Amino acid sequence: MPKIIDHEKRKIQIAEATWRVILERGMEGATVRNIAKEADLSSGALRHYFSTQDELLMYAMNLVKENATARIEKIAQQNFPPKELVLKILMEIIPTNKETLAEMEVWFAFIAHFMHDKSVFEVHHDGILQGLQKLIELLEHFQLLKKELNKELEIEKLYALVDGLALHAMFEPNRIDKKKIEQVLFSHIQSICK
Amino acid sequence: MPKIIDHEKRKIQIAEATWRVILERGMEGATVRNIAKEADLSSGALRHYFSTQDELLMYAMNLVKENATARIEKIAQQNFPPKELVLKILMEIIPTNKETLAEMEVWFAFIAHFMHDKSVFEVHHDGILQGLQKLIELLEHFQLLKKELNKELEIEKLYALVDGLALHAMFEPNRIDKKKIEQVLFSHIQSICK
Repeated sequence: MPKIIDHEKRKIQIAEATWRVILERGMEGATVRNIAKEADLSSGALRHYFSTQDELLMYAMNLVKENATARIEKIAQQNFPPKELVLKILMEIIPTNKETLAEMEVWFAFIAHFMHDKSVFEVHHDGILQGLQKLIELLEHFQLLKKELNKELEIEKLYALVDGLALHAMFEPNRIDKKKIEQVLFSHIQSICK
Repeated sequence: MPKIIDHEKRKIQIAEATWRVILERGMEGATVRNIAKEADLSSGALRHYFSTQDELLMYAMNLVKENATARIEKIAQQNFPPKELVLKILMEIIPTNKETLAEMEVWFAFIAHFMHDKSVFEVHHDGILQGLQKLIELLEHFQLLKKELNKELEIEKLYALVDGLALHAMFEPNRIDKKKIEQVLFSHIQSICK
């Protein structure tokens, strides 16, 4: 009696195999053949789920984003004071543990791979900018934000700060650790709040 | 009578051919064969200058850095008031024209290619952090920096801000233009100065 395998569950397994291949061999190693082998499938069976390599890569990229979003939403539902909540969410965006560093490395490989295809970027925009806008609005809502600030510029600045710290967390983990990142973010939040 | 070709000049020509290949085809296309063709050389002749692909890529990567450093030094020698000088140098680090955007794209492809080889990063550290430290010290020297600031955190923050803006300038040129980047940087300089 053949096992009934949930289609979506199998797609997630394949995406996870894709991440492992990218972490081990880089994007150049992320061929359909290698990914199928890692997922313990034939190339033909893999094509049943994803007809092209790019379709698979985009699915895997999106799953990284969904995982991160789920973690952030879980924090947002907890009952922290506004400034603390903002800091906790920012710390969740920046990779500071083994799991999120691996996610960032895969994300970075995806971005480098798709960088010439702007349409992919439009669709798979990582949603961080919108999230940061909400955080600034949260501080404003609780009347914590300094009145003289230009909100639009502050959102842009926070966005650059977060992505820059994420980049440094990934490439220079020995120079900048979790504690330092938290200090930089905390000092920034303080500088924009009353 | 054979032309005497300056060895270093030819190496630079090959590096420039490497940039063009990367811009057109991405890192996956940057094979010795393709680069030799673009440089109008045989693969054998190219190997006379660079014995491995990685040696060539590292040379080309370093040349991007040297070009940027030269441009920054030229600005530093001009006689601008301190805050204006800092803004001008920061604007030179962040890619905002066709030439520097191409440089950044090549640099990004290099980094993604070498990201698993930490030793390359140690050697080819891009020197931006040291440069930014000097800028913060310049503001301090002219007694422009706010006294209550933690200098170490401010250098780290500026570093993340600059790299984040560079990333966004490259990937989202339609959303964030040169003027917006300048406004973000100016507002940041103002926020750390008296």
